[in-house]
Amino acid sequence: MSKSIKLAILGLGTVGTGVINLISDNLDELKRRSGRDIVITEVGTRRQRDDIDPNIIQNSDLMAIAASDNVDIVIEVIGGTTLAKDVIMHAIKNGKHVVTANKALLAEHGNEIFAFAEANNVHVAYEAAVAGGIPIIKVMREALAANKIEWLAGIINGTGNFIMTEMRDKGRPFADILSEAQALGYAEADPTFDVEGIDAAHKLALLASIAFGIPLQFDKVYCEGITGITLQDVNYAEELGYRIKHLGFAVRREGNGSGDGQGNQDNNGAAGIELRVHPTLIPQNALLANVNGVKNAVLVNSHPLGQTLYCGDGAGAGATASAVMADVMDLVRILSNKDSNEQSNSQQNNHGHHVPHLAFIPEQLADTPILRAEQMITGYYLRVHAYDNPGVLADITRILSDAGINIDAILQKPAHKLGQVPVIILTLPVVESQMNLAIEKIEKLETITDKVVRIRLDELA
Amino acid sequence: MSKSIKLAILGLGTVGTGVINLISDNLDELKRRSGRDIVITEVGTRRQRDDIDPNIIQNSDLMAIAASDNVDIVIEVIGGTTLAKDVIMHAIKNGKHVVTANKALLAEHGNEIFAFAEANNVHVAYEAAVAGGIPIIKVMREALAANKIEWLAGIINGTGNFIMTEMRDKGRPFADILSEAQALGYAEADPTFDVEGIDAAHKLALLASIAFGIPLQFDKVYCEGITGITLQDVNYAEELGYRIKHLGFAVRREGNGSGDGQGNQDNNGAAGIELRVHPTLIPQNALLANVNGVKNAVLVNSHPLGQTLYCGDGAGAGATASAVMADVMDLVRILSNKDSNEQSNSQQNNHGHHVPHLAFIPEQLADTPILRAEQMITGYYLRVHAYDNPGVLADITRILSDAGINIDAILQKPAHKLGQVPVIILTLPVVESQMNLAIEKIEKLETITDKVVRIRLDELA
Repeated sequence: MSKSIKLAILGLGTVGTGVINLISDNLDELKRRSGRDIVITEVGTRRQRDDIDPNIIQNSDLMAIAASDNVDIVIEVIGGTTLAKDVIMHAIKNGKHVVTANKALLAEHGNEIFAFAEANNVHVAYEAAVAGGIPIIKVMREALAANKIEWLAGIINGTGNFIMTEMRDKGRPFADILSEAQALGYAEADPTFDVEGIDAAHKLALLASIAFGIPLQFDKVYCEGITGITLQDVNYAEELGYRIKHLGFAVRREGNGSGDGQGNQDNNGAAGIELRVHPTLIPQNALLANVNGVKNAVLVNSHPLGQTLYCGDGAGAGATASAVMADVMDLVRILSNKDSNEQSNSQQNNHGHHVPHLAFIPEQLADTPILRAEQMITGYYLRVHAYDNPGVLADITRILSDAGINIDAILQKPAHKLGQVPVIILTLPVVESQMNLAIEKIEKLETITDKVVRIRLDELA
Repeated sequence: MSKSIKLAILGLGTVGTGVINLISDNLDELKRRSGRDIVITEVGTRRQRDDIDPNIIQNSDLMAIAASDNVDIVIEVIGGTTLAKDVIMHAIKNGKHVVTANKALLAEHGNEIFAFAEANNVHVAYEAAVAGGIPIIKVMREALAANKIEWLAGIINGTGNFIMTEMRDKGRPFADILSEAQALGYAEADPTFDVEGIDAAHKLALLASIAFGIPLQFDKVYCEGITGITLQDVNYAEELGYRIKHLGFAVRREGNGSGDGQGNQDNNGAAGIELRVHPTLIPQNALLANVNGVKNAVLVNSHPLGQTLYCGDGAGAGATASAVMADVMDLVRILSNKDSNEQSNSQQNNHGHHVPHLAFIPEQLADTPILRAEQMITGYYLRVHAYDNPGVLADITRILSDAGINIDAILQKPAHKLGQVPVIILTLPVVESQMNLAIEKIEKLETITDKVVRIRLDELA
């Protein structure tokens, strides 16, 4: 065999340890597939560990590892957006390929990092940054490379999906389940990133870039959490044949009258891209609605392929290590090509012809606008509380009708207290600004007793 | 941009036309992703067509196209295993890369074709050969490259899945639905390849090779069709919480006492690989059980990733063209590398470092035995017809118990005619040879009135 491929792992937490274990468990498979020996030469860790192979150099100076001659590929699994960024930039500058699972870093600084990598002729691979072990980055950058991506919808935060699953299955309230998720180690002590959708928004920014060929624009992702979802809404949704999931959507809108397959109410829609994370009613019988617990899944609709679904573990040591090492295996082939070229005295390496970091070649990234929330088009679930007045339904439906909003279903339950009845209304897709106006009018009706609860709805059609 | 990548399409049926349409629809996306212009220079067709771009050369001499200087990549979509093979071998000999959707050809002659491609430093890409637009070849060869694949289970024939779905949903008998599938164009005039599982076996042979790193061994796939499945069994299965799907399984067995996670009855199991296509009861709530109609899906269980599922359209012009062109996009990168090397006067190209055809490097393919049917381990659904005799259940369960077969569930329906009652029994996994002996004994009981109906069962755990 040719000379070994030398890896450095920065960070020995769950993921770093998972990578060490994977290599130890599957070394034969790795060699059989790549034709190369793969060795960990250095690890970056704050304090010396005695459970690590003594042949591996332990070093607390991450910058030194990033520049070491003893390393071909740097695996960054320390997390965060400060030290991690410095170390990755230093590794790139020193000609090392980088593998990272750091979605926050890439979503926020990826444009800069990828440009620096291009300039230094190295790759920054990030399969593990989105949906853990599901190979959605490779699928979208390579397997769907001949398709025009129309939209994607993903369960891309395991904690959020665990909470939504438990609310439905066990009828337990949000706060209870969140405490359990924290006890089980699914959710962080500060669960804001999970339940407010920020973690999902990081991942969505990455997915949208490689779907549409646009720069990373995390700051433009519209983001709504699940903290406001009540058991009442979960149950009404089920009764109407829907299920509430916390989804990230990236949708290409062609704008006025060009027809985007999302119904007939989008004539006012602007051209651009919707990036949004929010609770969503989807049909109960959709596969995506049946992805439960901490599982992740991404549904991609593209032309001419149509819908494909990718489902698996979105987190955990094994799943993340699988994705990290898939990237390493790709880099092993690139390094092998480089070795061949050096043997044949080639004056030019061929890094220019790799899969582009954001799937499209950098000069071809588009400035397609990201739409503002008011421009976005979705169906809606509305829960309206009103006094049990015979005219109230007529008032509400007239307001919706005047705003050009089509009603798909209505459920009016018997009064359960003090003459108040919730009216549940499902609408066809509508531009959000129109819905805002309609809700404002509904809330001004004298018969309405409370704020209108609204949750987006998508038929995934 | 660099010089154009020149494609030849051999065959202008559904798939060939689909590829032409895809390139026409998505040319901008293809260029934005690859940085190269992609043009169809020649098409192979028996008779001149006037609906084809006049800049494209039409030629009925496929061997001439396969050797043409005007072609970089040959796309073979004529089908069959005779002319298609000659043309592919000729293209390889002439240094052309090949993309094919021809599962029958590869399953039966792939070892020879891939070896010839290796020897001639070209690639034969075949994403479209398995599960249509689902990128399962790339996923298994590249995205799961760091995993040890334990087993996979796939719905890999759309016609068969359409029939099983309709039987359950509409309660219609097999023959009726098959006629409809033929009328809808899902099933061939001769549906044998679909309903007897031969088409699925072709695909399974390919999946198993890239899962385990073994040569293609289509002739060793155990194959059972769906023609014997009755509505009665479909309904009993549902009643017990299961659904019958026509699945292809590739399972790695470690043999005696090494524990393969399939329960505690496999102590007699031999080491090797099970390759089998058969109707299978799987839990109703598994995602795979809810993949309906002509959709395909593959569930892969690997270490350390765990279970991942890939689902989408397994056939049709758009899905197949998507897979064909994904292969083309990979080859464009390889051709671009080659161009770079030539510009720099490299004496050696780097084709040695591509993704191996069968995922593992050729010298590393293993001679792991493929197990015979009697050695395979699965759970079972048994339907036993007996006279309504109080002792019959005791007799049956004693026979099963003596054979070391554990019963998971029993359903005994009231007698429906002439004192005959069907007894439905679900068992835990057992080596098939033991089940054969037990069934032989059961059928010899005086109280048994008919052959025992058996269908395999898998918990997908």
